[in-house]
Amino acid sequence: MIKKLKMEELNRPSVEAFKEAEKTPIAFVLDDVRSALNVGSAFRTADAFGCAEVVLCGFTAQPPHREIMKTALGSTESVAWRHFSETQTALEALRTEGYILVAVEQADASIFLDQIDIDQQKGEKFALIFGNEVEGVSEIAMEMVDFVIEIPQFGTKHSLNISVSVGIVAWEFVKKLRC
Amino acid sequence: MIKKLKMEELNRPSVEAFKEAEKTPIAFVLDDVRSALNVGSAFRTADAFGCAEVVLCGFTAQPPHREIMKTALGSTESVAWRHFSETQTALEALRTEGYILVAVEQADASIFLDQIDIDQQKGEKFALIFGNEVEGVSEIAMEMVDFVIEIPQFGTKHSLNISVSVGIVAWEFVKKLRC
Repeated sequence: MIKKLKMEELNRPSVEAFKEAEKTPIAFVLDDVRSALNVGSAFRTADAFGCAEVVLCGFTAQPPHREIMKTALGSTESVAWRHFSETQTALEALRTEGYILVAVEQADASIFLDQIDIDQQKGEKFALIFGNEVEGVSEIAMEMVDFVIEIPQFGTKHSLNISVSVGIVAWEFVKKLRC
Repeated sequence: MIKKLKMEELNRPSVEAFKEAEKTPIAFVLDDVRSALNVGSAFRTADAFGCAEVVLCGFTAQPPHREIMKTALGSTESVAWRHFSETQTALEALRTEGYILVAVEQADASIFLDQIDIDQQKGEKFALIFGNEVEGVSEIAMEMVDFVIEIPQFGTKHSLNISVSVGIVAWEFVKKLRC
């Protein structure tokens, strides 16, 4: 019989230990994301995967915020974040800091997520850009990115929910950069 | 300049075409999931990844339901689903139908998601079991499963959101079984 682990058996770090720990070299960039629930979920995923930071752009909601708290469950305390009024300014700053800029979008020259070629040994860091629920990643961001990743999909709907897309794309990077 | 694709350029199948198409051989089993928003999100992910079905157990909400609709965005029309009052009965039925039973849980003898060994060539199909938001996968289900998968995590919080976990685990199977 396989036994479930109790919270104390998971050996989760404290907020202080998390802040001092080495991070997975990825940042989530939320480009005019409308739903604060999606923002909170991105924080929770960033905490779980030990990500470097969350970058909130434009009208994307910022902590403290009631709906962010609902889905972040306290992870806005552990995960580093900052806000930029303009996505362009955010991406310029991230590029200066050495981030490779990656849009997650359905596009004509995208790389499917199962085909990405990244290697822990190269020491690269990645800013993963997720766009608005309806409009997707902004045109200004699309013009600046180094490449575009697309999650292969076979269904009737346009796309996956942003929270789910953040989790899937983050996992693929975490696996290659940290596991 | 990389161009975003329009809805009509994505060549998404109609609901009728989806129903007739060959499916990714995975089912999502929701074992007493409290949030109907999580249920709707599981439907949307099942649609996107062309999954065989969604199996709702116990008090997990069923369509038609206002909160499921909010996050499913119509995917309850494309994705096959059924409900069982008891998770045990559901898992017995799925096993009889040839499904391998897999819990997604933090457990003492779990296999980390990056280590799973599955192969498209074997023609296997998998029932992926996700548990209640607080209690996790039920003990009765844990006793019945063939193996347990755990998503590696490095954060301060207990776990990822269910919707996000469904997406991440489904993606890993979709990649190995379909991409």
